[in-house]
Amino acid sequence: MIKSYNRIKALLLLLLFIIPFGITFSQNGSDPLPSWNETKTKSNIIDFVKSVTDENSSLYVKPYDRIATFDNDGTLWCEVPTIQVAYTFMKVKEMLPTHPEWKDEKIFNALLDGDKEYIDHDIETGGKELMKVLYATNAGITLEDFQKQVSDFFNTAEHPKYKVPFTKVYYVPMLELINYLRANEFEVFICSGGGLDFMRVISNEVYGIPTQNVIGSFGKSKFEITDGSAEIMKLPDLILVNDKAGKPVGIDYFIGRKPIFSAGNVRSGGDIEMCEYCQSNTLPSIQLIVNHDDAIREFEYSEKGNESLNACAKYDWNVVSMKNDWKKIFEFE
Amino acid sequence: MIKSYNRIKALLLLLLFIIPFGITFSQNGSDPLPSWNETKTKSNIIDFVKSVTDENSSLYVKPYDRIATFDNDGTLWCEVPTIQVAYTFMKVKEMLPTHPEWKDEKIFNALLDGDKEYIDHDIETGGKELMKVLYATNAGITLEDFQKQVSDFFNTAEHPKYKVPFTKVYYVPMLELINYLRANEFEVFICSGGGLDFMRVISNEVYGIPTQNVIGSFGKSKFEITDGSAEIMKLPDLILVNDKAGKPVGIDYFIGRKPIFSAGNVRSGGDIEMCEYCQSNTLPSIQLIVNHDDAIREFEYSEKGNESLNACAKYDWNVVSMKNDWKKIFEFE
Repeated sequence: MIKSYNRIKALLLLLLFIIPFGITFSQNGSDPLPSWNETKTKSNIIDFVKSVTDENSSLYVKPYDRIATFDNDGTLWCEVPTIQVAYTFMKVKEMLPTHPEWKDEKIFNALLDGDKEYIDHDIETGGKELMKVLYATNAGITLEDFQKQVSDFFNTAEHPKYKVPFTKVYYVPMLELINYLRANEFEVFICSGGGLDFMRVISNEVYGIPTQNVIGSFGKSKFEITDGSAEIMKLPDLILVNDKAGKPVGIDYFIGRKPIFSAGNVRSGGDIEMCEYCQSNTLPSIQLIVNHDDAIREFEYSEKGNESLNACAKYDWNVVSMKNDWKKIFEFE
Repeated sequence: MIKSYNRIKALLLLLLFIIPFGITFSQNGSDPLPSWNETKTKSNIIDFVKSVTDENSSLYVKPYDRIATFDNDGTLWCEVPTIQVAYTFMKVKEMLPTHPEWKDEKIFNALLDGDKEYIDHDIETGGKELMKVLYATNAGITLEDFQKQVSDFFNTAEHPKYKVPFTKVYYVPMLELINYLRANEFEVFICSGGGLDFMRVISNEVYGIPTQNVIGSFGKSKFEITDGSAEIMKLPDLILVNDKAGKPVGIDYFIGRKPIFSAGNVRSGGDIEMCEYCQSNTLPSIQLIVNHDDAIREFEYSEKGNESLNACAKYDWNVVSMKNDWKKIFEFE
């Protein structure tokens, strides 16, 4: 009697080990998210993916409707410093001698003097001032020339803290998540406040996301044929700041349907509307907000007003704690 | 001697039959374009696809770069009448009693009076007047409401000549071509002067092209949360008329890379710049222009100034003769 009771106990213990593995591991038995700790966030993500891909589930979603949108800065890669700001800073320094008029503009001075507070305040409030600089340094040249300059930057510049190229500061757990979603027939998009033409230079190399799946801020441009070559010329007027309430608009322009999966991060509240738009999908959906709470392995910062975390609490979105949910952050660790 | 000469002749004759079959037929031996006649146009298309997909060819193009862009009206489906114009005409009639101010505008009168010449002239010169009407009838409502109205139209309206729903007037040879390209790992996009939100209602149903692969004319919009529902509100300001020199700009916004395959049609010269942009790709590329020369099975019309056909001659683009190159035009024939 006692023996068989022990056998049942042993079986139950075994089951206790099997069940979480069963939840966490993908169909072929290997963990699809090995850089994630075994927390509620990870199991929420995996449960969601399993439900929407299970034809027998009431939550089943056809592959056609499995659209996922990820913010880029602070969600997929490190945003301290914001990489496009680092690029722009380099360009401003390079171009300043031929643009004395910039000396009277506050944002240019902030960049040159390293006035972090002014720049951060601008980023937190939508980045309108920085956009001015972006277009001053990025417009009036062909798309090809611009992307060549950006490419040169990525080949030479390095991250001030980690001393690696900026293309290496992506978050390993998020790249795993992108690959996991794709393996489950999700169509994955970047949806970032960053410049469309800027991100497209590295989106495929870094994340395996093709240029057509990148949504970002963009401006007017013009098609020109000069000396037999057909070029896109970048003009200085902004069309869309793909941030905050601009994100659902960008998603509609570029995708035309609501996502069922969206991920953003705490810093400026820039991803709240994207997650609201995602959650308004009549299909099952999930939302993630990455919280930068790991001062040792990355950076610790919060958001003035705390809107993103408040929205998580209000709408039951998943807060991803970099400190607790991620076993590993960078490939180079 | 004569016997063996005859044997060689027989072999050569056999080869003569085998070679064209070898060129035309796909790897598994079935014809990928059965609705196309065995003409130079068909063999040019198939030769191109074979070269860019053959790793041993000097013309090989990686799947990542196999981007194809197709105009819609007159290239993928019948444009007599332009289907979005038919929709708009219906809406103008429906909305006129509550919009007496429209009576003073020339384009509204042209629509109501069936002034074909005025409308055609507008289409041929870029459709700016019609765009006014499109936005008068399409703006100020949510995207969801607009697409519901368009969907109702497609469920009820029928083509005046063929007496079938408008969703049935697509060209069978072009649908075959889209499927052939996809089977060869091309990413296929619609790139049309038509409204983005309009075409997306039917792009997947008619062509199997998902909404994110549709590029079209689009206007400003706004994200709004009202009564707990998250909506995109369509505003009256145009951002991009995705026609003529607007097409390369649209391709850059939505794809971010140059196509290697582009197809348009004769009518307004609207696809010339798209084909020029495609041809400026440093990778091997091919361009097609559909010529409406089949008065019996479809409609016969040319282009004032003849720019599209002139461009075909100048740049060595393929003219697709509906009369000679297409065995079948419509599914319902």
